Amino acid sequence: MSAGAHRKQAKNSAFLDVCRRLPTSYTPVWLMRQAGRYLPQYRKVRRRYSFIEMCKTPELAAEVTLQPVDYLGVDAAILFADIMLPLEGMGVEFEFAEGEGPVISEPVKSLKDIRKLRVPEGGESAPYVMETIKIVRERLAGRAPLIGFSGAPFTLASYLIEGGHSRNFIATKRMIYNEPEAFRKLMGKLSDTLSNYLIAQVKAGAQALQVFDSWVGIISPLDYDKFVMPYSKRIFKKLKHLDVPVIHFGADTATLLERMREAGGDVISVDWRIPIDEAWRRIGYDRAIQGNLDPTILFAPIKIIKERVRDILKRAASRPGHIFNLGHGVLPQTPPDNVKAMVDMVHEISARGAE
Amino acid sequence: MSAGAHRKQAKNSAFLDVCRRLPTSYTPVWLMRQAGRYLPQYRKVRRRYSFIEMCKTPELAAEVTLQPVDYLGVDAAILFADIMLPLEGMGVEFEFAEGEGPVISEPVKSLKDIRKLRVPEGGESAPYVMETIKIVRERLAGRAPLIGFSGAPFTLASYLIEGGHSRNFIATKRMIYNEPEAFRKLMGKLSDTLSNYLIAQVKAGAQALQVFDSWVGIISPLDYDKFVMPYSKRIFKKLKHLDVPVIHFGADTATLLERMREAGGDVISVDWRIPIDEAWRRIGYDRAIQGNLDPTILFAPIKIIKERVRDILKRAASRPGHIFNLGHGVLPQTPPDNVKAMVDMVHEISARGAE
Repeated sequence: MSAGAHRKQAKNSAFLDVCRRLPTSYTPVWLMRQAGRYLPQYRKVRRRYSFIEMCKTPELAAEVTLQPVDYLGVDAAILFADIMLPLEGMGVEFEFAEGEGPVISEPVKSLKDIRKLRVPEGGESAPYVMETIKIVRERLAGRAPLIGFSGAPFTLASYLIEGGHSRNFIATKRMIYNEPEAFRKLMGKLSDTLSNYLIAQVKAGAQALQVFDSWVGIISPLDYDKFVMPYSKRIFKKLKHLDVPVIHFGADTATLLERMREAGGDVISVDWRIPIDEAWRRIGYDRAIQGNLDPTILFAPIKIIKERVRDILKRAASRPGHIFNLGHGVLPQTPPDNVKAMVDMVHEISARGAE
Repeated sequence: MSAGAHRKQAKNSAFLDVCRRLPTSYTPVWLMRQAGRYLPQYRKVRRRYSFIEMCKTPELAAEVTLQPVDYLGVDAAILFADIMLPLEGMGVEFEFAEGEGPVISEPVKSLKDIRKLRVPEGGESAPYVMETIKIVRERLAGRAPLIGFSGAPFTLASYLIEGGHSRNFIATKRMIYNEPEAFRKLMGKLSDTLSNYLIAQVKAGAQALQVFDSWVGIISPLDYDKFVMPYSKRIFKKLKHLDVPVIHFGADTATLLERMREAGGDVISVDWRIPIDEAWRRIGYDRAIQGNLDPTILFAPIKIIKERVRDILKRAASRPGHIFNLGHGVLPQTPPDNVKAMVDMVHEISARGAE
C-alpha cells in the first residue's frame, strides 16, 4: 500500500489544522531549506542564476518553491527567499558570497548608523517577494499551503552588526553591553520592518508564517529577557489579528523554550538537542510543536532514519499539534532519496499509528 | 581594602577544597584559556615561537602557564597545552594553521584507519607535557594548584574524523550512523589513550584534571547515551582511584547535564546558556559546579561585568562547591584589564558574602 493511500486528509488542511492543534489523520511534514542545494532540480536552476537573482525573479523563486512539493510530497511549501532580503528596503547593502552566506558592506557600528536605517511600509522592503507569493499560490492550486517567513529581530541585528556569519558574536554583544540604547533602537526598527513585511506576505497570500531566530541560541536567558523578548513579542502581537498560524523557530534554544513561548507563536520549533516530548512539556501543551530530527540523520542508512522518525513520532503522538520537521535546515550534501524516504515514512508511520 | 585582604584561605587550598564541596572563605576562580592570546605577555613569547613549539618546549609552556597566576591572581594554574597533543602518540599527524586551529593531514575515514592507531602507554603520547608539569609545580611553589587536562573522546574523535574544526559535523555523524562499530572502536582507543595520558599527568604532579568535551553539544541526548557515555564513563572510572578532583567540561550542553553527571566528574562545568542555579539543581548537589559567565561579558563596561558576576555568585552561593569560571575560553580580543578586574570582583564579592 502506498504512503498516500494511508492519508485520509487533504494535504491542504493537515498542516494548517495541526498548527491549531486540531486532530489530523496523519502527521504533516515539511523541511526547512526543502527548496535548496541538495535537490538536483534546484541546482539546475542555480547553475544559470545567482542566488540573489533567483530570489528577486518571482518566476524562478516560484519554480524552486514548488520543486519539493512535487518531488517530496511535503505538506507545506515554504517561500524561496532569504532572511536578508527586507534589509535592502532599510537601506542596507549586502551580497551573497559563494559558500560564505551574506556579507554586509557596511556593518552597523553606532547609533548614527542605526538612525539612518529606514522602516519600510508594507511589502515595499521586498516587493518581488509578494509577487512570488502570488504566483506560488496560483500554481499550488490548493495542493499544499504556503508558508511565508522572515528572520527575527535578534538574528537580523546580529547579521547587521557582525557584517555576516559569526562564531562568537562579539560585536553584537559588545553593542548590547556597551550601547544598550543603540541596540534597542536597532531591534525596534527591525521589529517594525519585519512586522510590516510579514503582514504584506499574508496579504499577498501566505497562509502561515515562520519567524526564524536562527542565532538567538548564543544569548543567555537573562539577556533574552532584556534584549530580545520585548522585540520578538512586538512582532507576534502584531501578527495575532491576521488569523494565520505563526511558527517561532530557534536553534540551540533548549534553555530558551519557555521564553520563546512567552514571546509568541502558535507553534514553537525545536532542534535535536532536546527530546521533543520534554520540549513540549516545557513549552506547554497549549502550543503546537515542530521538529526535531537532526539534519545529519539524513546521511544515515534508511533503517536508522526510520528508527529516529519512529522515536520522534512516538514521543509527540499523545496529542494533536505536532508538525514533523528537521531541527534545522536540510544540509546541502544530503542525499535527496533519503529526504524523500523520510517524508514518506512520516506519513506512513503516523497514519498507521492514528488508525 | 584590597581584594587579597578579604581572603582568609590559602590560595593553594581554596580551589581544591571547593572541588570537594568543602566550605571556603571565598569563591575560587580560574579561566579557561587564561594563558592565551589576550595577554600581552603571552603574545610576546608567541611572537618568537610557533604555537606547537611553545607546547613542546617545557620551559616556554611553563612560563606562559604561570603568567595568569601572577598577573590575574587566579586560584589555579592550568597547564599550557592543546587537546590535540596526545594524538601524535597515536600516530596522527597534524599542524596548527594560523587562525584556523588544528588541521589533520589524513582524517580518519574507515575502520582500517582506526585499526592503525596506537594506544600509547603512560605519558609517552606527549612526554614534554609531563616535563612542563614538573617545572610548573616547582615554580608555583604552592602559590596555586595546577590543573592538567585532556580532550574527551568524542571531541577528539570529531577532530580526527572531520580533519579540523567543523560546523555541522557531518563526517562524524555519518560514521556514527553508518559504521557504528568503527566509531566505537575509535572511541575506545581514544578513551584508553586519554586515561593513560591523564594518569601520567597526575603522576607528574597535576593536582586536578579537566576533561574537555568541547563539541559534544552537537549530539542529541539519544546519541550521547549510545555513542558517548560509555567511553567518557570509562575515563572517569579510571581516574577515580587517583584522588585528584576531575572537572567535566562541556559547552552548549544544557540538555546533556544529567548525562554528563552520570558519565562522571567531581565538578561539572556549564556554559552561559543556562542559569547556574538551574544547572546545579539538575546536575544534583552531590557534585560541584563550575561556570558560567559568558566570555563576551568581558567586553562590557565594569559596571555590567560586576552585575553579572554578582548574579552568578548569588545563584551559586547557597552551598559550597562553586568554582567561578567563564562558560568557555577567554576570547583572544578580550581586554586584559577587564579580566583582571573580574577576578578581583569574584574574590571581593564572594569573601564579603561569606563573612
